[in-house]
Amino acid sequence: MSADSNSNYQTLVKHFQSISHFEHLSALGDWDQATMMPNGGGEARGAAMAELAKHIHSLKTAPMLAGTIAQAQEQVLTAEQQANLREINYQFLQANAVPGDLVEAKTKAAYHCEQAWREQRKNNDWQGFKPNLEQLMDLVKEEAAIRAEILNVSPYDALLDKFEPGMTTASIDSIFTQVKSWLPELIQQVQHKQASEPKYTIPPASAESQALLGREVMQILGFDFNHGRLDISNHPFCGGVASDVRLTTRYDEADFTSGLMGIVHETGHAKYEQGLPIAWRGQPAGLARSMALHESQSLFCEMQVGRGSGFLKLIQPHLKGLLGCDLSHEKLNNIYTRVTPGHIRVDADEVTYPCHILLRFEAEKALVSGELAVADLPDFWSSQMQSLLGINTDGDYKNGCMQDIHWAVGELGYFPSYTLGAMYAAQFKQAMESQIGSVETLINNGRLGDVMHWLQTHVWSQGSLLEIDELMRQATGETLNPAHFKRHLENRYL
Amino acid sequence: MSADSNSNYQTLVKHFQSISHFEHLSALGDWDQATMMPNGGGEARGAAMAELAKHIHSLKTAPMLAGTIAQAQEQVLTAEQQANLREINYQFLQANAVPGDLVEAKTKAAYHCEQAWREQRKNNDWQGFKPNLEQLMDLVKEEAAIRAEILNVSPYDALLDKFEPGMTTASIDSIFTQVKSWLPELIQQVQHKQASEPKYTIPPASAESQALLGREVMQILGFDFNHGRLDISNHPFCGGVASDVRLTTRYDEADFTSGLMGIVHETGHAKYEQGLPIAWRGQPAGLARSMALHESQSLFCEMQVGRGSGFLKLIQPHLKGLLGCDLSHEKLNNIYTRVTPGHIRVDADEVTYPCHILLRFEAEKALVSGELAVADLPDFWSSQMQSLLGINTDGDYKNGCMQDIHWAVGELGYFPSYTLGAMYAAQFKQAMESQIGSVETLINNGRLGDVMHWLQTHVWSQGSLLEIDELMRQATGETLNPAHFKRHLENRYL
Ligand SMILES: [Zn+2]
Ligand SMILES: [Zn+2]
Repeated sequence: MSADSNSNYQTLVKHFQSISHFEHLSALGDWDQATMMPNGGGEARGAAMAELAKHIHSLKTAPMLAGTIAQAQEQVLTAEQQANLREINYQFLQANAVPGDLVEAKTKAAYHCEQAWREQRKNNDWQGFKPNLEQLMDLVKEEAAIRAEILNVSPYDALLDKFEPGMTTASIDSIFTQVKSWLPELIQQVQHKQASEPKYTIPPASAESQALLGREVMQILGFDFNHGRLDISNHPFCGGVASDVRLTTRYDEADFTSGLMGIVHETGHAKYEQGLPIAWRGQPAGLARSMALHESQSLFCEMQVGRGSGFLKLIQPHLKGLLGCDLSHEKLNNIYTRVTPGHIRVDADEVTYPCHILLRFEAEKALVSGELAVADLPDFWSSQMQSLLGINTDGDYKNGCMQDIHWAVGELGYFPSYTLGAMYAAQFKQAMESQIGSVETLINNGRLGDVMHWLQTHVWSQGSLLEIDELMRQATGETLNPAHFKRHLENRYL
Repeated sequence: MSADSNSNYQTLVKHFQSISHFEHLSALGDWDQATMMPNGGGEARGAAMAELAKHIHSLKTAPMLAGTIAQAQEQVLTAEQQANLREINYQFLQANAVPGDLVEAKTKAAYHCEQAWREQRKNNDWQGFKPNLEQLMDLVKEEAAIRAEILNVSPYDALLDKFEPGMTTASIDSIFTQVKSWLPELIQQVQHKQASEPKYTIPPASAESQALLGREVMQILGFDFNHGRLDISNHPFCGGVASDVRLTTRYDEADFTSGLMGIVHETGHAKYEQGLPIAWRGQPAGLARSMALHESQSLFCEMQVGRGSGFLKLIQPHLKGLLGCDLSHEKLNNIYTRVTPGHIRVDADEVTYPCHILLRFEAEKALVSGELAVADLPDFWSSQMQSLLGINTDGDYKNGCMQDIHWAVGELGYFPSYTLGAMYAAQFKQAMESQIGSVETLINNGRLGDVMHWLQTHVWSQGSLLEIDELMRQATGETLNPAHFKRHLENRYL
């Protein structure tokens, strides 16, 4: 290879470095908008962010990229450089897949649909929401068809690929079918077992004291405050960039427990970001592997660690000190592992949560294939909720198919990530325990750091250098295996 | 004019709108860096901001601009469009004046000099600072010479033009020579008069209560919290954008008075920004007129309004309520109008402040012309401080010529704006009083809003639509006249 052809890869590296700088500013703008910006600043900010998005898109679709990528693929590169080139190509294909006017039409329809949905949801106004969703769904189907053509996969596979590169409808079908075969019965068993357990009252706690507690708990989990902060927003998220992770949460003064576990969850996301490979910062290979893997890290913190008795024992004195909360770690454990089927996904416990995802996955597949019309969505929803969780949602749209923002903004293909993440997390726990011993014992022995170090080594520091299946094989000895998730639920809840 | 040539102006409008969006993000990045960002985020942020600055520069020097501006100048435009085109051309010339490698060389030298200065200043290390400043000064002189050539003015005029378009060394010379003829004697008279006055003890106040007080005082001054916020930073500033102004301050728990007046000062800057013409948002004509005019608005708030007895009477109950401060408004007035010659510009009172500027103006002129070598700066400083304020600074570099950041970053030509601003402010007050009556009386009658409305009409809403002399003529009937400043000082202090 000549020095000249060697420069193709370097050209790409520089180009994507530059893109990452603009994405840094985009992340900052998003965070500020959710946490700091006064309402009156919204219009000018919106215009600035749209300009920035347009610029980033123009960089990702720069005419020179196709040729430069093709030539770089001919170069002699290290394995890591090859991985980076693969991710560069993935980003290039994603950005180029959909024509500009379709992107714009979908953005507009999504904005319109979401704005109206905010009111319609409150008013249980399905008749108002339906035409907007129908219009948006047509555009989603158009996008899916175009992506499918380019990727040579099915339309719904093409949507999954945006969030979970390489994941297919067939794999998820096979996994979710298994889950459906045992989960409803497991839920009944757990409910039966928990029926006789006492219920505890949660003492009130001020937002200020919860914020102090949140920071102490983040510190316990090893969050690096030199590279991040904690603030308040209406919808908790983990934003910013790897070198400066911006966590947010909200506080309910009548019930601190969900806010606290929300911080533990977001800290899991943050640890992943803070642990991404420093040598690859600013390059596609240095980014998190996928949305499901991201969720696996937040759920590892929240579910595998956070709701375990070792961790609850560890933080109990902090709850006592800062909130004056007298609940023992056993009682906290009871609160944090109570299983109650309900209408709302985001309020669901660890055991019933997958049912909400199974339902949405089936609905999305059918909506995209055209087997299910938007008009028939409420009936579909009711019958699925009935069979999965024994809940009737007839006529209750706002707590039914109108509850999530995802469809209202035309985002299909994302929901499976939540449950895939829970499964990856359970698999990591199993592998970790076979390698370094019981997580509960480690935590009880003051060695939570060992748990984090395992994740650092096997997940965070890998960035996107490996494809997901290979990452899982190297970390756990096998690709995604939902049996570990089943075993985890049985161990904890039966 | 054909429709086609009409589009030249519209092309420029769109282009500068786009630039303003990126400048919005730049302002956000600066603000966040000073108020929110953890230290560890600095490196990546610095890289992102440098990328953004490069992009903005490339937009302002886009090859199509010269021709498009020339053709737009042939179009039939409204007076306001012509003004906007004039400002577009000004920005274009400013950005194009200096070759890219000189900008880069100066940016690097400035960064190096400033970083070292932060330590050297603490250590009074003139010998360490001198070579860095010499190197930087050579680049400043090179820049000034290039700008002078293009603008067909003297090198120091070319530097003034960056901050104060149209202002010349000759005008400032003439104004400052007058000031020098009466100010030192005035200072002596005031000191003599104040010698017998009592001194009052300032009660301590927590940062939290000062922040609450600050917000109440901002509200009294009409700061619009739907379009801005108040936060904390090491060096107070007024940042953000017109629709979302980000004020910062810092709190000294042992002495609330300077922090409070700092907020009043920055609120003056903020009111100007929030009052800029909405129809011209995002266009050069919609920006503040000049740095001196900006300073005139902060100093109007701080000096003309803030240190007057009417305003102090107005806020006194808030000091009592929030800080438990028992000082009467007469005592506050005494504290806020005490005159004490000192070494440090930023700590100077209203009366001695111009002496610090006179000195720096003389030094800058001589440094740029080459009459004064960097090596001779400390001696120059000492003799000027002696003659202007009777202060000996021999060997005390850190409280002498090393005290300001401006020269350490190669920013010459800015200092005069501070005193020009004080003069504009006094002139506005005089004109306002001849039109709507005494400011003190208006405030005492609960009509501070009338004062602000006058500024809104005559200054803020003008943006950069008028050139400075015309703005002053329309607002006050004459161009800058330093006699009003002299009268203001005599009225208040003698
Ligand atoms: Zn999450
Ligand atoms: Zn100022």
